[in-house]
Amino acid sequence: MRKTALIVTLLVLTLLALPVWAQRREIRIPDIYGYTTLKCDFHMHTVFSDGLVWPTVRVDEAWREGLDAISITDHIEYQPHKADVPTNHNRPYEIAAGKAAGLGLLLIRGTEITRNTPPGHFNAIFLNDINPLDTKDFFDVLEAAKAQKAFVFWNHPGWKAKPGEKYIADINEQIREKGLIQGVEVVNGRSHYADAHTWALNHNFTLMGNSDIHSPADNDQMQPENHRTMTLVFAREKTVEAIKEALLKGRTAVYFGNTIIGKGDFLEGIFEASIHVQKPYVQSKNAVSVLVTNESDIDFELRRTGKVGPSTITFPAGQSTFVKIPIDKDGKAELAYTVTNLCTAPGKGLSLSTTFYAD
Amino acid sequence: MRKTALIVTLLVLTLLALPVWAQRREIRIPDIYGYTTLKCDFHMHTVFSDGLVWPTVRVDEAWREGLDAISITDHIEYQPHKADVPTNHNRPYEIAAGKAAGLGLLLIRGTEITRNTPPGHFNAIFLNDINPLDTKDFFDVLEAAKAQKAFVFWNHPGWKAKPGEKYIADINEQIREKGLIQGVEVVNGRSHYADAHTWALNHNFTLMGNSDIHSPADNDQMQPENHRTMTLVFAREKTVEAIKEALLKGRTAVYFGNTIIGKGDFLEGIFEASIHVQKPYVQSKNAVSVLVTNESDIDFELRRTGKVGPSTITFPAGQSTFVKIPIDKDGKAELAYTVTNLCTAPGKGLSLSTTFYAD
Amino acid sequence: MRKTALIVTLLVLTLLALPVWAQRREIRIPDIYGYTTLKCDFHMHTVFSDGLVWPTVRVDEAWREGLDAISITDHIEYQPHKADVPTNHNRPYEIAAGKAAGLGLLLIRGTEITRNTPPGHFNAIFLNDINPLDTKDFFDVLEAAKAQKAFVFWNHPGWKAKPGEKYIADINEQIREKGLIQGVEVVNGRSHYADAHTWALNHNFTLMGNSDIHSPADNDQMQPENHRTMTLVFAREKTVEAIKEALLKGRTAVYFGNTIIGKGDFLEGIFEASIHVQKPYVQSKNAVSVLVTNESDIDFELRRTGKVGPSTITFPAGQSTFVKIPIDKDGKAELAYTVTNLCTAPGKGLSLSTTFYAD
Amino acid sequence: MRKTALIVTLLVLTLLALPVWAQRREIRIPDIYGYTTLKCDFHMHTVFSDGLVWPTVRVDEAWREGLDAISITDHIEYQPHKADVPTNHNRPYEIAAGKAAGLGLLLIRGTEITRNTPPGHFNAIFLNDINPLDTKDFFDVLEAAKAQKAFVFWNHPGWKAKPGEKYIADINEQIREKGLIQGVEVVNGRSHYADAHTWALNHNFTLMGNSDIHSPADNDQMQPENHRTMTLVFAREKTVEAIKEALLKGRTAVYFGNTIIGKGDFLEGIFEASIHVQKPYVQSKNAVSVLVTNESDIDFELRRTGKVGPSTITFPAGQSTFVKIPIDKDGKAELAYTVTNLCTAPGKGLSLSTTFYAD
Repeated sequence: MRKTALIVTLLVLTLLALPVWAQRREIRIPDIYGYTTLKCDFHMHTVFSDGLVWPTVRVDEAWREGLDAISITDHIEYQPHKADVPTNHNRPYEIAAGKAAGLGLLLIRGTEITRNTPPGHFNAIFLNDINPLDTKDFFDVLEAAKAQKAFVFWNHPGWKAKPGEKYIADINEQIREKGLIQGVEVVNGRSHYADAHTWALNHNFTLMGNSDIHSPADNDQMQPENHRTMTLVFAREKTVEAIKEALLKGRTAVYFGNTIIGKGDFLEGIFEASIHVQKPYVQSKNAVSVLVTNESDIDFELRRTGKVGPSTITFPAGQSTFVKIPIDKDGKAELAYTVTNLCTAPGKGLSLSTTFYAD
Repeated sequence: MRKTALIVTLLVLTLLALPVWAQRREIRIPDIYGYTTLKCDFHMHTVFSDGLVWPTVRVDEAWREGLDAISITDHIEYQPHKADVPTNHNRPYEIAAGKAAGLGLLLIRGTEITRNTPPGHFNAIFLNDINPLDTKDFFDVLEAAKAQKAFVFWNHPGWKAKPGEKYIADINEQIREKGLIQGVEVVNGRSHYADAHTWALNHNFTLMGNSDIHSPADNDQMQPENHRTMTLVFAREKTVEAIKEALLKGRTAVYFGNTIIGKGDFLEGIFEASIHVQKPYVQSKNAVSVLVTNESDIDFELRRTGKVGPSTITFPAGQSTFVKIPIDKDGKAELAYTVTNLCTAPGKGLSLSTTFYAD
Repeated sequence: MRKTALIVTLLVLTLLALPVWAQRREIRIPDIYGYTTLKCDFHMHTVFSDGLVWPTVRVDEAWREGLDAISITDHIEYQPHKADVPTNHNRPYEIAAGKAAGLGLLLIRGTEITRNTPPGHFNAIFLNDINPLDTKDFFDVLEAAKAQKAFVFWNHPGWKAKPGEKYIADINEQIREKGLIQGVEVVNGRSHYADAHTWALNHNFTLMGNSDIHSPADNDQMQPENHRTMTLVFAREKTVEAIKEALLKGRTAVYFGNTIIGKGDFLEGIFEASIHVQKPYVQSKNAVSVLVTNESDIDFELRRTGKVGPSTITFPAGQSTFVKIPIDKDGKAELAYTVTNLCTAPGKGLSLSTTFYAD
Repeated sequence: MRKTALIVTLLVLTLLALPVWAQRREIRIPDIYGYTTLKCDFHMHTVFSDGLVWPTVRVDEAWREGLDAISITDHIEYQPHKADVPTNHNRPYEIAAGKAAGLGLLLIRGTEITRNTPPGHFNAIFLNDINPLDTKDFFDVLEAAKAQKAFVFWNHPGWKAKPGEKYIADINEQIREKGLIQGVEVVNGRSHYADAHTWALNHNFTLMGNSDIHSPADNDQMQPENHRTMTLVFAREKTVEAIKEALLKGRTAVYFGNTIIGKGDFLEGIFEASIHVQKPYVQSKNAVSVLVTNESDIDFELRRTGKVGPSTITFPAGQSTFVKIPIDKDGKAELAYTVTNLCTAPGKGLSLSTTFYAD
């Protein structure tokens, strides 16, 4: 059989297209204050509860998407595939552990405690054995988690609430008073829970944001477009222990669409480590222009709160932007801006102000 | 708490981003010769054998990707998840059937007969019950398929062969002689099997092309980029019976990357139904230009085999292209081209020739 | 020199990458009511006034972007490149005409009358000669345009106005009363002029939307992302005369980002010709699902105004969407929606209502 | 008039879409050996010869595309727009200089000497005045360039040659012998000139690669897809003088599609500064896996020339890739690869070999 150009072309294309074993996207959010910024997702499901993928898929997806650590948190109580996949709480972790180790992805054993709302659903992570949590009384479950020194957080607090409805119930306040939870999911998938966000700030809970994926990650309709919702953990190093230490100390932020939610200090650290300003190119008596490079994956959106400067500025991810700054007769400018998508509280952007000197 | 502009923006964005229940991409490959061109994938896996997703995921994926019919074909003999998901050959079909019906996707009960190579793997589809095929002797399995009037095809024939190695074994010829198979997968995922393609043409087997996906479709590394490998079935109507009739009559083509493999008549039908030529805009003594619109999703690649016209032409998908045609003193041109990515045999493009008249 | 695989690869890639002479994107907005929907841009500049490209570039760009007709409208009075490109009002048309004819793009001779605001800028199109309009008195210019039976429209009416400032001045009302203009640019580039839009509706002016590009089209920062702002003209045929007839009769709409602005009848025609509903797949006592295919390039955004149905629906361009419709005991549903991005007046979407029958 | 939600949405979208003054893509090719890697294009045209844009457009485009330095090189002799734009050789530089200075883009005064082939076309750059080069005798022109200490290079050497035809003519050898040129364009737009490439290596000419754009950069059909063809200059600093010094010393490479052409040292420097290898995650007796991160914009394509390791590897731009390396009983591997798209000579990739130690 004659091998003509077409077959050569097909072969060449086939060769070029051959998949390398695995490829990982790097998420560009900088390390801050000497901590390494770990990209984590502590909430997801598999066929072992109501998810639709095998546990190893969660590891593959997370690794390819640039995550550093995940927890598979299948429901203890809700097991719709039970007839085909008999209940076995520790199996998702066991099945996924080898692949995670091979890829250098940290896998944290966890589960989702699943009760009617209120009180709702809670994730317990850093467990040694999930089975002791499969017990009837709700407070017994939380105590069983505590006995294993788990980190427990409240999932999607306003999940079933109607718009405007109060969803922080007496039993949730009671859980808080008893010290049975340490964190609150202020974002779950596409949903931001403003009241729970405020409540978490008031009571100093660790801010969590997770995907809660059930379908394959690439087509889960609850995910925002470019990346899954995740918790940024500012950890001393990339280990399970260091993540636990950071969660207990509240050193997290939530990366959600093009927004990061967190305490002002962390957000300021991220902004400053992402943004580089080059010395002015253009000078006149009244204005200078600076070239601002944004090395992160976030498009920062700024709105002027002071008297001078452009009324809005966008610093797109991975690009450089020219900004013209009016200066006074002493060659300086008092700049004040809000970064509207670095969110310190519901409806509140990060405030920045600085005195800019032209030379 | 004051709701500022940020929160409004977040809400607006959230609202806009809300997932509609389901969205389907339309694959633009035209109907031909009065047949409807159905997009089909007859080879895929789930957690019930060595696949990594729940059966309903296969339905969702196929529907979103614009397919009309699928067959879930878990291995009978290879069951690596058996410890967690006990063997139950008919369950994938049963689990997926409701969702498929709801979405109007045709679901065909099938399975993969899995033996060492040679003879290799075979799919049997249009079954009523898979269990009778779970038997020891290989020829008994094929007879059991025949008893249910299944359509049986040979999967990825050169799968384990080294480059250049002959892979059509005596047992494969024996299967052919006994009339136990009706089709051959000339493309499986990213792999085109040239010798099997020639063998299938020589013995008039139905040409099949399937994905053989194991991972979630969106990240399966064996899939070409823009769409999965699929079988185009030229059917009398969109029913399971009409697909069976078309398969038995050999009315198929294989859509693989930017290439379609099939018999010349079908390929010519697709080309002609995709391409529309508008009357010349420019005229001189020596040349006219025509505007050629390609309404299909395929970028057609042409190479001149005649004496006049551009040496290569591409008609990109969904776009219009100007082509300048030199004409003789009688205002005509003898055009002859090969469409290199409409492939009638290994290394052989579709030949087209026509006398073009300028007016 | 030995030609190794690399050089072969380079050659192959180079060959594949060779540019075809010209390629045109098709804009999918359907014909309506027996009219052909022509995509037109009646406002743009070249180096002959304050634009930055040669006139033929405007033809190339327009053709590639799928336009059917354009007018190059360089400023009569504002000529910042005069020292290098001496004033010659008719040259842009003359230079571009040959290329336009060759590509089958309709080129309409036009110009921009450029005065201080108020009265502002006005385009006169369908001229035979621009020179007679190069005269001092403003009303003389408009009369010179009238003498050539030009179609004249008011450009970017609120261009220099501050937010909230009234910009329809006495002189503009005077121009209107004298019947010296027939159209109003309700959108120019990225800017929508709400008050002028209302004014145009009240006084029955033809609605215009144009790009006003100065830079190369692909990087003009005033253009919305996916396509330039354009006027859709519902014409009897694709000729300059038919466009003029349609403009004089007010048969236009404005395509701006993902919004179309126009009279209700035209918008309804576009919606109905774009949307195809397939017979229900799923039926229960309480609901049916229909598959809705949108063959246009517009993502239609619907908001419920009636009592039943999803509160919002998006029909993405070129995709199919499943919509679940609750039905009453008689198998019907009274549906009422606003298509928020088909805009009949500032702030007003197209209202649709229908009685849906399940079978 | 009531302002409803639609208008709010339109306003919000409009606001978000407002163009920032200017945005620049950063090209990620690392600095090497203490030199800064400047991205330069020394060949392009405007309306002042046969180009189609105003000179400032060339500055805008270059800045947005991430270039550091350009030279506008309009033809001295070929002036097809002369009737409308009278000849004025120094005007393109003068018109563009202010904008370039404002953006910090280095603008180098240059021109294209345009004669029949052979000898062909030559660019002279770093001129003070172009007018003295507008003289009849070809060698006089080159001497006039020399008198201004210009850097002169041969443009698109095989431009008019048929495939296989010899295009380095006697007169070109004569020019070489007289020392009248210092560089050779081995790539111009989409065309690589293999024989000229070899000739340049043999005679130690500086390797040049330029766009030669005539149309607006974003739609110039001669440009490869993702970036224009450019010369990488390894300069002591970002100044015109430092570029001249580097060009005279031959410290360049050519960035063309996904290929870089240059001397082995420079290519090795780029590879090593782009690639970071993380310590093995997986260890067995026979193999370790390493995580390789590619921080450049180039997809490196490797082909094995040694005995162990994957037969081909791709390190995609900005991603991390797992590579499994078989090790011998001493825990090491002798790795040898060719980077096929780092090209040291026509058909020759960069050879790399290393002894890899597992721990």
